[in-house]
This record gives sequence, structure tokens and C-alpha cells, in this order.
Amino acid sequence: MDETVFGSALGGRLAETARAELLSCRRSIDNIDAALIHMLAERFRCTQRVGELKAAHHLPPADPERERQQIERLRRLAKDAELDPEFAETFLAFIVKEVIRHHEAIAARQAARAAEASGA
Amino acid sequence: MDETVFGSALGGRLAETARAELLSCRRSIDNIDAALIHMLAERFRCTQRVGELKAAHHLPPADPERERQQIERLRRLAKDAELDPEFAETFLAFIVKEVIRHHEAIAARQAARAAEASGA
Repeated sequence: MDETVFGSALGGRLAETARAELLSCRRSIDNIDAALIHMLAERFRCTQRVGELKAAHHLPPADPERERQQIERLRRLAKDAELDPEFAETFLAFIVKEVIRHHEAIAARQAARAAEASGA
Repeated sequence: MDETVFGSALGGRLAETARAELLSCRRSIDNIDAALIHMLAERFRCTQRVGELKAAHHLPPADPERERQQIERLRRLAKDAELDPEFAETFLAFIVKEVIRHHEAIAARQAARAAEASGA
């Protein structure tokens, strides 16, 4: 599959060594992406449980103090790993937005079930 | 740190078992986030090299066919991991946008250096 991409997109323009290096980078990227997808799936399993607990105890979906601490920590980790801290923060915001969407959906489902159970 | 968060945000409202479970979930989330940050840092190291190779060989920063294949693969992986494939696709778009920004910056730097070297 990658061979075809390289054949069509890069044509004969690249020296063989550069072509091999690009292909090698893309294989690493594909492996990393598979890891990221699985880590994200596991993260959403955890936040799903947090959402259920929050809904059961009528806690708000968002927690600004917890988020502030997460941002601070991730910016520090990013800096150590030579990743742009701004990007790390935007990344967390992107994930948290999706998590809050999930939490709100869980809370709405639990409220609907409670209303149904009480005959409302 | 988490103790304080729980102390302030959840107060005495939660049963002790629920509070312990929330704390446990948050510890898992923090571990996963550290893993995500490091995987992202490594991914950008790879795409940095791709950007250098592309700039050196005057290839466009974006590669629509490669991106199409990545989207298809990540959606499939997400489905297997019970992660929303729509979210996986949005996630990849989010990352790729940042990568293209990096590639354009690399190409601009290399063009500036070439202009300087040629005395233009």
C-alpha cells in the first residue's frame, strides 16, 4: 500500500535512500498511531466510568480545578519530551471537550431513566 | 494534589468507595496522558524527519492519498477498540493539521537558507 503511495506521489524524484527513509518514517508513524488509538480507547473507558460516577452522585461534568492541574502537568511533560507545550494544551482541550460531551450524554441518559422509573 | 481536588470538588457528597474509584480512574487517566504525550512527541520526531526529506526533495507538505489511507486504517482500528471512528478521524485531522504547519515551517526555513546561500 505504501509502495503505491510512494510510487505515485514521489515518482522517480527521490534518491533510493531518501525514499527508503520516508517509508521507514511512515511505518513508525503508523505504529505510533495504532498505539495512540488504543491509549485513547482506554482513556475513554476510564472517563466513561468517571462520567457514570459523576452522574450517579450528581456532580458537574466539568471540573475546572482538575483540568487546570492536568494542563500544568501535561505542559511540563511536553516540555521534557521536546513537544510544544502549547500543542499539548490544545490536545488536552480537544480530548476534554469530547469527554464532557460523553459525560453530558451519560447524565442525560441517567436522568431519563430516573424520570421513567419515577413515572414522570 | 488529587486529594485536595477531591476534597474541594467532591466534598463530603460521595460515599468513600465512589470517591476511591474516582481517584483510581484519575490516576489511570494521568498515566495514559503521560503515555499519549510521549507517543505524540515521538510521532512529531518522525514527521519532523519526513518534513525535512519532503523539503529537501521539493515535495508538497500534504499528501492526500496517504492521508486517505491513514483515515481508513485508524477508523478500522478505532472500531476494533470500541472507540468512536468519527472521533478517531477528527483526532487524526487535528494531528495532521499541526504536522502540515510544521512541514510548511521547515520548507520556509530551507527556502530562506537556499536564498541566502545563493546570495538572493
